[in-house]
Amino acid sequence: MSDKASAVAASPSGDPWLLTPGPLTTSVATKEAMLHDFGSRDKKFIEINRRVRSSLLNIINGQDDFVCVPLQGSGTFSVEAMLGTLVPQDGKLLILVNGAYGHRMAKICSYYGRAHDVMEYPEDQPVSISDLDARLGEDKAVTHVAVIHCETTSGVLNPIAGVAEVVEKHGRSLLIDSMSAFGALPVDASKIKYDAVAASSNKCLEGVPGMGFVLIRRTVLEKAKGNAPSLVLDLYDQWVQMEKTDQWRFTPPTHCIVAFEQAIREYEEEGGVEGRGGRYASNCKILVDGMRALGFETLLPDHLQAPIIVTFHKPTDPKFDFQNFYDRLAERGYLIYPGKLTVADSFRVGCIGRMGNDDIRDALVVIEETLNEMGVENCAPAAA
Amino acid sequence: MSDKASAVAASPSGDPWLLTPGPLTTSVATKEAMLHDFGSRDKKFIEINRRVRSSLLNIINGQDDFVCVPLQGSGTFSVEAMLGTLVPQDGKLLILVNGAYGHRMAKICSYYGRAHDVMEYPEDQPVSISDLDARLGEDKAVTHVAVIHCETTSGVLNPIAGVAEVVEKHGRSLLIDSMSAFGALPVDASKIKYDAVAASSNKCLEGVPGMGFVLIRRTVLEKAKGNAPSLVLDLYDQWVQMEKTDQWRFTPPTHCIVAFEQAIREYEEEGGVEGRGGRYASNCKILVDGMRALGFETLLPDHLQAPIIVTFHKPTDPKFDFQNFYDRLAERGYLIYPGKLTVADSFRVGCIGRMGNDDIRDALVVIEETLNEMGVENCAPAAA
Repeated sequence: MSDKASAVAASPSGDPWLLTPGPLTTSVATKEAMLHDFGSRDKKFIEINRRVRSSLLNIINGQDDFVCVPLQGSGTFSVEAMLGTLVPQDGKLLILVNGAYGHRMAKICSYYGRAHDVMEYPEDQPVSISDLDARLGEDKAVTHVAVIHCETTSGVLNPIAGVAEVVEKHGRSLLIDSMSAFGALPVDASKIKYDAVAASSNKCLEGVPGMGFVLIRRTVLEKAKGNAPSLVLDLYDQWVQMEKTDQWRFTPPTHCIVAFEQAIREYEEEGGVEGRGGRYASNCKILVDGMRALGFETLLPDHLQAPIIVTFHKPTDPKFDFQNFYDRLAERGYLIYPGKLTVADSFRVGCIGRMGNDDIRDALVVIEETLNEMGVENCAPAAA
Repeated sequence: MSDKASAVAASPSGDPWLLTPGPLTTSVATKEAMLHDFGSRDKKFIEINRRVRSSLLNIINGQDDFVCVPLQGSGTFSVEAMLGTLVPQDGKLLILVNGAYGHRMAKICSYYGRAHDVMEYPEDQPVSISDLDARLGEDKAVTHVAVIHCETTSGVLNPIAGVAEVVEKHGRSLLIDSMSAFGALPVDASKIKYDAVAASSNKCLEGVPGMGFVLIRRTVLEKAKGNAPSLVLDLYDQWVQMEKTDQWRFTPPTHCIVAFEQAIREYEEEGGVEGRGGRYASNCKILVDGMRALGFETLLPDHLQAPIIVTFHKPTDPKFDFQNFYDRLAERGYLIYPGKLTVADSFRVGCIGRMGNDDIRDALVVIEETLNEMGVENCAPAAA
């Protein structure tokens, strides 16, 4: 237990630690990259943009067959753009849903008037590969399947490799939302067959928010002209223009991109998906073990838990008021996250961002002290 | 002529001066605001976001009747969202076009399948109020009119006050793209009648790129439910959620927003639209006078020139190669901008961003020295 943890903790930039699914705590060097203004059509910026796009392809071993199309906005902008650009107007999307982000994809399809169906599972369970196999055998109208890699609603890990096998077997196209997992969990295109994966700058790659990107199989994107129902979200047009001029069609978030370049450099130095994923996995284990030692219970069994964000059941002890708990932790330098479950009272604690095992241990000390201050004696949830 | 101008110039952050229409040179304090990570759902960020939204309404004197809906992405994302959210599916948009940004609005309508017509004018002329009056008298199907405040294609100022009078007379709804003018030229809602104005963080308000915003008459937005053809670009939904929770629907560009708060503070300290617009007007006059003294000719007569960006005809002197000129100026610390005219060879120089009259004078010295090095003797364009 460090002195720091007993008082007010702060990240190296003096800010509270963000134990959230993002925006996250980023490195000082990543933020310092934003101390410079770049002309969006100047050579120096164009080279940075090119390096970022190429590095992202390296992460999935996708240099040969994939292209990287970055897009302004949050990750959801990239997901909407992926669906709108790749599912044609006469296509049909089957969405595997076990949380809010799957439902969001269905909502996007409703806006776009795209035919779609959902296969829905409880928030504490992964989607089912065998169900999908049966469904694709029956429904020949389905052209595309979409799945969420890690559903941050609960933190559950979905079996994307198994999903990919089934989708390939049935000759359909797989689109993955790997927003909160990309960079920490593998989505290796040389091992898993898919046509597109969407993610963003501000999750496990530890950049700042402001852009997303979709890595798309080149032969698939080449056929996607005219699909998109939106100019700004047209990834085909964004790609063609960027290939032609090396520039973004519309003003890029220059500071976010130069920060992302620095963040990716640090990612590579940490050993890529193994190094980054390894640190998060140990963060997650320390967090879960420590919280269980305090009496908390996780929503998920360990084998379903992605090392991204952990959902804890809310204790039934009447002295545990979440807002009070949140505010006290915030005052001590730790921002946690409310629950998003529809079925149970819960809260979430993230394990990702620029923080190490000791920072998680410090957080646990502060959590214990806070519970004591609140007079919470029993952190167990109601019996199931 | 300072010593600095004779060697390599640099803005206070050590970067080249961005004599472009944006991203622009921003203040050091604005960039330093990004050295901190904020939780997007935490109180401190929520308060910053609230202050930014309120300050933007103050700029148009719109606190009583307007609401501010910020949106992730570049300014074009906000323009597309404005059109998609406010022009209903059975509406018809008349677009006043005298450059690329007007044409872009027409393209957005084509993507959306929204009925639209354009009234097109040459790039060096403002749109015509009397033509609009006649057209609205004839075409009763037109429900909305869109106009670009300052067309950065050429730098021409459009007569938005006159346009607004005519649109009001005919009982239609006016949507303004004030992207490159907002903050430097007045769009006072208490003096000009319009229903929405779109702009972005990274133009005359001197923030960094990453978000736009649309200021919308409340009674108009209240009726816009269900119009938008895109989830992420649905300003009605964005507004309703933000009013309810004070949070963005999807991850906001937190660093961009905290920088924007600082930029707006500096804007207010400079005296708002009068102070900011005044500095840009004198920047523009110094630039135009200086370039004319070197023999260059502006595309526009002074009375049509907005103090944002100036288009100069390309000299016919064979020793004037634009890329060479650009590269030499870039090496000396000044980034200028290529032309965008379809009808004439030209280049552009911006007057906006965190730079003062002396910085423009320094740039003129470097431009003169560069022309001498290149051996350019005559900066006049071909006779018209």
